[in-house]
Amino acid sequence: MTLTEMSREQISAFKSECEKEYEEYKAMGMKLDMSRGKPGADQLDIAMPMFDVFTNAASMIADDGTDCRNYGALTGISDAKKLFGELLGVGTDEIIIGGNSSLAMMYDTVSRAVTHGVYGSDKPWGKCEKVKFLCPAPGYDRHFAICETFGIEMITVPMHSDGPDMDMIEKLVSEDEAIKGIWCVPLYSNPDGIAYSDEVVRRFARLSPKAKDFRIFWDNAYCVHHLTDTPDHILNILDECKKAGNEDMVFIFASTSKISFPGAGVAIMAGSVNNMKHTAKIMGIQCISYDKINQLRHVKYFKDVDGIMAHMAKHRAIIAPKFKMVLDMLDSSIGGLGILEWNKPNGGYFVSVNTLDGCAKRTVQLCKEAGVVLTGAGATFPYGKDPNDRNIRIAPTYPPLNELEAAMKIFCVSVKLAAAEKLLEA
Amino acid sequence: MTLTEMSREQISAFKSECEKEYEEYKAMGMKLDMSRGKPGADQLDIAMPMFDVFTNAASMIADDGTDCRNYGALTGISDAKKLFGELLGVGTDEIIIGGNSSLAMMYDTVSRAVTHGVYGSDKPWGKCEKVKFLCPAPGYDRHFAICETFGIEMITVPMHSDGPDMDMIEKLVSEDEAIKGIWCVPLYSNPDGIAYSDEVVRRFARLSPKAKDFRIFWDNAYCVHHLTDTPDHILNILDECKKAGNEDMVFIFASTSKISFPGAGVAIMAGSVNNMKHTAKIMGIQCISYDKINQLRHVKYFKDVDGIMAHMAKHRAIIAPKFKMVLDMLDSSIGGLGILEWNKPNGGYFVSVNTLDGCAKRTVQLCKEAGVVLTGAGATFPYGKDPNDRNIRIAPTYPPLNELEAAMKIFCVSVKLAAAEKLLEA
Repeated sequence: MTLTEMSREQISAFKSECEKEYEEYKAMGMKLDMSRGKPGADQLDIAMPMFDVFTNAASMIADDGTDCRNYGALTGISDAKKLFGELLGVGTDEIIIGGNSSLAMMYDTVSRAVTHGVYGSDKPWGKCEKVKFLCPAPGYDRHFAICETFGIEMITVPMHSDGPDMDMIEKLVSEDEAIKGIWCVPLYSNPDGIAYSDEVVRRFARLSPKAKDFRIFWDNAYCVHHLTDTPDHILNILDECKKAGNEDMVFIFASTSKISFPGAGVAIMAGSVNNMKHTAKIMGIQCISYDKINQLRHVKYFKDVDGIMAHMAKHRAIIAPKFKMVLDMLDSSIGGLGILEWNKPNGGYFVSVNTLDGCAKRTVQLCKEAGVVLTGAGATFPYGKDPNDRNIRIAPTYPPLNELEAAMKIFCVSVKLAAAEKLLEA
Repeated sequence: MTLTEMSREQISAFKSECEKEYEEYKAMGMKLDMSRGKPGADQLDIAMPMFDVFTNAASMIADDGTDCRNYGALTGISDAKKLFGELLGVGTDEIIIGGNSSLAMMYDTVSRAVTHGVYGSDKPWGKCEKVKFLCPAPGYDRHFAICETFGIEMITVPMHSDGPDMDMIEKLVSEDEAIKGIWCVPLYSNPDGIAYSDEVVRRFARLSPKAKDFRIFWDNAYCVHHLTDTPDHILNILDECKKAGNEDMVFIFASTSKISFPGAGVAIMAGSVNNMKHTAKIMGIQCISYDKINQLRHVKYFKDVDGIMAHMAKHRAIIAPKFKMVLDMLDSSIGGLGILEWNKPNGGYFVSVNTLDGCAKRTVQLCKEAGVVLTGAGATFPYGKDPNDRNIRIAPTYPPLNELEAAMKIFCVSVKLAAAEKLLEA
């Protein structure tokens, strides 16, 4: 019997049981963090040999003769362009290797668009009366924060199981010239873990926006972050855009933050030659060069795409059991109660759940009071406002397995308690 | 006898001799670069032990327990704040440790001011009808490029031997609300090598700008880059601003680009707590954290300010002879001819020279045709336009000593040839 089918008495009894269990956990005074998609310490250990790749000064010379210890090579060393270009399926003239943060490359790209415009803009976005972005949601809170800080109006687009609502997107971009961009996490989307279908990618590539300087912000953050033997796969957006005659319409982003080290990885941006040249021109005012030693460190350690894939298999071995535990516990503890829906992602960093409407905030609050910090309810929507107050993002990677188990017990009972409260309130 | 005192016949004979010498050099087909302030390869070798400071994962934990391999610590690890705060004479809450580029921190600071305003702004600078910066010149071309890319109007301020013309600065900032900033390289200024006198620093600190959100951009790029036993010294601008009740008026910048590695060093920004908090708030939208592993690498290698000073002595041992050679050759080859003036800097990366009016471009062109690339004439002035066409920036550090000698021979004869041409033209 689902909770919604129960009588008030049955729900009350259910609630009492949950309260008892909850109070027991609370009394344990735990302090657990499942708020952000952070790798665990054991994952960070995997890439430690990366710090042994340099033997002497000569080992710091890149393939093209660049001394990585000195100024120069604004758009990245050729070795890194080759490696990461192959990873993303773009040419070495269609890629820029940046600093330690793809978020910074995204923020900077929007910032440049606001102050300078993008390739093909009539004027900087900041000189437009109104700028809007489409925001498939649930989505990544930091994408939305970039829009908010620049005063870009966000329009929420629903997510389906194969990607965002393309009918809505096609209609809106073709009608409204103020819509200048859209945020996408096309593979293992944050937080739903969805992969965009081939049809969705092709419809993106064929968009016919009213704004000639519209851009798709294609954050391929989880491009190699598989959790199963049968990983999801997405089409190459730049290839599809070229086929559709829209090659300047997309900015692609990726990083090694969750491959090597968060904060000490390498960030990547890709797109048409026009877009890369336009970007590099303004970027060259901002800095002389990024950290090429770190770029070369990555190239020497990974060697090639196979090296990256072999490395990712080690991450998977550590985090797949964590995802399994989360999903198993949801199944055994909440399955069949009809109060929670969730995805089983084939990759990425999150398990996204939907509570009964109006229960997400309360669930997160209950968890917090029992010592478990989750991503704030609403964070996965523009302006932090989930219209149905139901989506919660679970980030299973950071806590050790035993702590994760404890945290999930608290999470499950909190979901049940919040649902029972809600149903009794009605 | 100076060249200007000679008869036309004497100058013609002088010119013929120079031409002969110049053609001999030209025939040698050299390719030498003195265009940028880049360390030489031998300087980069000094800091190589920096890559041996980490022995294992535990060695990557900062003093405050932060695992430098993971996300977090947006404004820098406390160890680095302590070290570089001491270096700059600011508190650990008055500093942000950034990425690999102080230029990027300066660009980003201006960019944020344009899109968001600074602490205390009524509105973003980009919403003002007009924004102007004062630009002491000769100055750093990349500072000027930042203004130019954001459409900030530049007003040239003359440099004196103790710093920029403070009478002019005080008058302008007190009268014109559109003036929002000024670029300063207060110690061993780029390119003149001038140190701002105590009086100049105090007058800066006591400025009473009409624009309430006026900022001094204090690029202390060469704060420990001494060349002599009797180095220049400047007052602490933040202290002086505090005394004058103007503590929010200054942004301080520095980096280890010319201490450890250009492009793989650590950048630093400092200022009042208000300024740092305001900066960090927007910076936190741009990125999650900078490269803390590299921050800790620097702290572990240098240990303390004495460690930095000892390290800088090694740089000095390599580059002081290069500066000496440049100055000696100018003396022996051009001294007494009355066609070139130059500074003898006690530190920094440049020797700045002034030719006869109207001779800088021609001199640089002659050098180029003989295989020696200099910083473009005019680059040291806003919009690349030296009103007197006389300033040239010599960057002696990058070429090995023997190449520097060859380049300086070509430079000296080019100066003489250009001067003779000019005088005969009159």
